[in-house]
Amino acid sequence: MEQKPLEGIKVLDLTRVLAGPFCTMLLGDLGGEIIKVERPGTGDDARHFGPFLQGKSIYFISLNRGKKSITLDFKDEQDRKRLKKLVACCDVLVENFKPGTLDRMGLGYEQFAEINPGLIYTSLSGYGHWGPESQKAAYDMIVQGRSGIMSITGEPEGSPVRVGVSIGDISAALFATIGINAALLSRERTGQGQRVDVAMFDSMVAILENAIARYFVEGQPPGPLGTRHPSITPFEAFQTRDEWIIIAIGNDSLWARFCRALGQEELIDDPRFATNSRRTDNYEQLQPLLQDIIGTYRAGDLSELLEKNGIPSGPINSVDRLFSDLQLKARNMLVNISDPDLGQVQAAGNPIKISSLSDLDYREPAPELGEHTREIMEKYGLD
Amino acid sequence: MEQKPLEGIKVLDLTRVLAGPFCTMLLGDLGGEIIKVERPGTGDDARHFGPFLQGKSIYFISLNRGKKSITLDFKDEQDRKRLKKLVACCDVLVENFKPGTLDRMGLGYEQFAEINPGLIYTSLSGYGHWGPESQKAAYDMIVQGRSGIMSITGEPEGSPVRVGVSIGDISAALFATIGINAALLSRERTGQGQRVDVAMFDSMVAILENAIARYFVEGQPPGPLGTRHPSITPFEAFQTRDEWIIIAIGNDSLWARFCRALGQEELIDDPRFATNSRRTDNYEQLQPLLQDIIGTYRAGDLSELLEKNGIPSGPINSVDRLFSDLQLKARNMLVNISDPDLGQVQAAGNPIKISSLSDLDYREPAPELGEHTREIMEKYGLD
Repeated sequence: MEQKPLEGIKVLDLTRVLAGPFCTMLLGDLGGEIIKVERPGTGDDARHFGPFLQGKSIYFISLNRGKKSITLDFKDEQDRKRLKKLVACCDVLVENFKPGTLDRMGLGYEQFAEINPGLIYTSLSGYGHWGPESQKAAYDMIVQGRSGIMSITGEPEGSPVRVGVSIGDISAALFATIGINAALLSRERTGQGQRVDVAMFDSMVAILENAIARYFVEGQPPGPLGTRHPSITPFEAFQTRDEWIIIAIGNDSLWARFCRALGQEELIDDPRFATNSRRTDNYEQLQPLLQDIIGTYRAGDLSELLEKNGIPSGPINSVDRLFSDLQLKARNMLVNISDPDLGQVQAAGNPIKISSLSDLDYREPAPELGEHTREIMEKYGLD
Repeated sequence: MEQKPLEGIKVLDLTRVLAGPFCTMLLGDLGGEIIKVERPGTGDDARHFGPFLQGKSIYFISLNRGKKSITLDFKDEQDRKRLKKLVACCDVLVENFKPGTLDRMGLGYEQFAEINPGLIYTSLSGYGHWGPESQKAAYDMIVQGRSGIMSITGEPEGSPVRVGVSIGDISAALFATIGINAALLSRERTGQGQRVDVAMFDSMVAILENAIARYFVEGQPPGPLGTRHPSITPFEAFQTRDEWIIIAIGNDSLWARFCRALGQEELIDDPRFATNSRRTDNYEQLQPLLQDIIGTYRAGDLSELLEKNGIPSGPINSVDRLFSDLQLKARNMLVNISDPDLGQVQAAGNPIKISSLSDLDYREPAPELGEHTREIMEKYGLD
C-alpha cells in the first residue's frame, strides 16, 4: 500500500459539533493523525446529540472515526502547558470556538505561531475572525437564511425551507480542508505556517452559483422554483401514478427523443416548445401538459422507457434506498465503523477516491472521551 | 506579498460547465496557472448559458476568472500532440467528461501517466469511474434526487424541492480540490502523481450528515421538515407581521431567556416545554403557540429585541441583500471581475482566507474563447 497523502501530519483538533469535526475527519481519512482535545467531563457537545444507540451518539461516531481523544481543561494551568507542548509538536491546529475566545485565554494564533512558526492555524466560525459581526454566534440555519440560499430553495408560493443538511457547516469544513492542504503544500517550500480563516457565511455565498449572476444581470433577486431549473425546460420532478420522477431534458435533441418515447411527436415541432428557450418561456403551458401525460405512467415503467431511450431521469430516493444502491456499494460509500460497544455502525464513506487511499472500512472507531489521554501524554512527553 | 500556495503549479483544465470549472477556479485563486482547453468554435458549454449581458454569459464569467483559454480539437492529430505536450508540462489535469470518453480517444489516465508520472489526473463525474453505472450521464438534479438530499429538503406535506444551488456539482468540486491539494503534497515526498476520482453522487452521500445516522438508528428514513431542526426546538423560521424570522434556541438557558424576552415567563417551566427534549416531543403544541406570539411583532422590532437578549435569530435574505451586507463587505466576499467589454462584473469571492492570499479583486477576467492560444503555444513550445 502506498503512503497516504497526509501520513505523518499531526492535527491538533480543538473542534466540536460539525464543521470542525467534519474537516478533521477528512484530514484523518487522508492519513493525518487527529488528536482531538476535549473538555473533561462533557467532551464534544455532539456526544450528547441524538440519535443514540445504547446511550452512545451515532451522530458523534459518524463524524469522529479514527480520531484520538485527550481531555484537557483550558482553564487549568497544567493543562494549558500540555496544550502548548502539543502545539509545538503539531503541523495543523483546527478550532471552531467563537472568534476571540481562544485569544482571550492566551491560546490564539499570535501566541501559538510564536511557539510553532510552521503551524497551520485554522479557524472555522460563523462570520469569520474579522469584520463588524465577527463576534456573533451563528448556527447553520441562521447562516442559511442570511446567505440567501433559503430564498432560492423551496416551492414558489410555499413557506421557507432549509436545505435538509447543514450545508453551512459542511461547505465551510470543505473550504477549510482545501485551505489546510494548500497551506501544508506551501509550507513544504517556505517552511512557514499560516493562518486559515473560514466562515460559514462566506462559504454559503461562495456556493450560490448562478443566483448572484442572475441578480447582477436582471436586477431582481431570484426566488424558489421547487424542483424546476431556472433556464432549462423540462428539467424537474413530475408525479407519476405512484412516485415522483425527475426528468432532465438538457437540450433540443433530447427533447425530440423524449417526445418520441412518450408517443407525443406532435410536440417536437410545436412552435411553443421547439427550442429550450421557447419551452422555458412557455413553461406555464408545457408543465401541466407533460404532467398529464406522465401522470398516466407508473414510475418504474416510465423510468425503464426513458432509460431505453437514453433520456436522463431518476427517482427521489429516501435515505433507506441508498443502502441497496449497487453503484454506491461499488464505490464503498457506506462504510462500517467498528464500535467496541455497538459493533458495526454504518456511516457515509469518503468521496475522495485517490490512488494512495485504500478502503476506509478499516478506520478505527470514534474514541471514548479521553480514551487516548495516557497514550498521547506519553508519546508527546506531557506529564 | 507572500507566495500563493499553488504558485508555479500548472493546471491543464479540460472541464466544462460547473463542477470542473468551479474546482479549477479554486486552484486558480490559490495561485495555480489554469490552462483551460476548449473546443474550437463553441468552447465551454457554459459560454452559452444565461444570464447574458451584451451577449456574454455572466454565468461563465463568474466561474472562469483568471483562467487562460486555448482551443484544441481532440480529434485533430496535430492538436492531440499539442495536448500531450501540455500534459508533459503540467502538474494537474482536471477533466469532467463522461467516464470512458477520454480513454477511448487515447487521452485517459493510463496514457497520460506514462507521459508524465508526476501528473495528478483528476476526474469529476456523476457516478465515478468504476461501478455498474459509472458510464451513466448525470445532471446535478438527478443526483440530488437519487442521493436522498431532496427527500429531506422541503415542507413536510409539500412537493419535492431541489436545493436551490447545484450542490452535487459544487460539493464534488470541493472534494476534488481537497484531493488535488493532498496529492500535490504527497508528490512533494514521493515524486509520484496519482489519480483523483470524485463523483457527484458519492459527494452528496458524504454530506448527508445526520440523515444516515437517523436511519441507521431508527430504521425509518427521515423526511423533510420545512425549516425545522429534527431534534432541537424551537429552531426554525416563524412568520412575523411582515417578514419571516429564524429563531434558534439551542439550549435550555436560551429558552428561558427567550421566554423572558417575549414576556412569556410562564412557558419556561411549563412541564411540556421545560427541556429541549420535552419541547421537541411537544412540538405540535409549542409551534402554534409561539407562532401566535411572534406573529404580533414586526420582524425588525423582534430582531432587535432578540439581539439585545443574546438570542440567535436572523432573516431569510433574498440575494439582493447580500450586496449591502457589511460583514460580507469586510470579508471581501463579493468581488469585481474586470471584463474588457462589460466593465466590472460582480461575483462571489473566495471564502478560503489564508495569510498568503491577498485580495481577489485583482484577478484577471474570464478569457475569451482561445484568447491565450498563441501565448500558451509559445510558452510551451507547441507549434
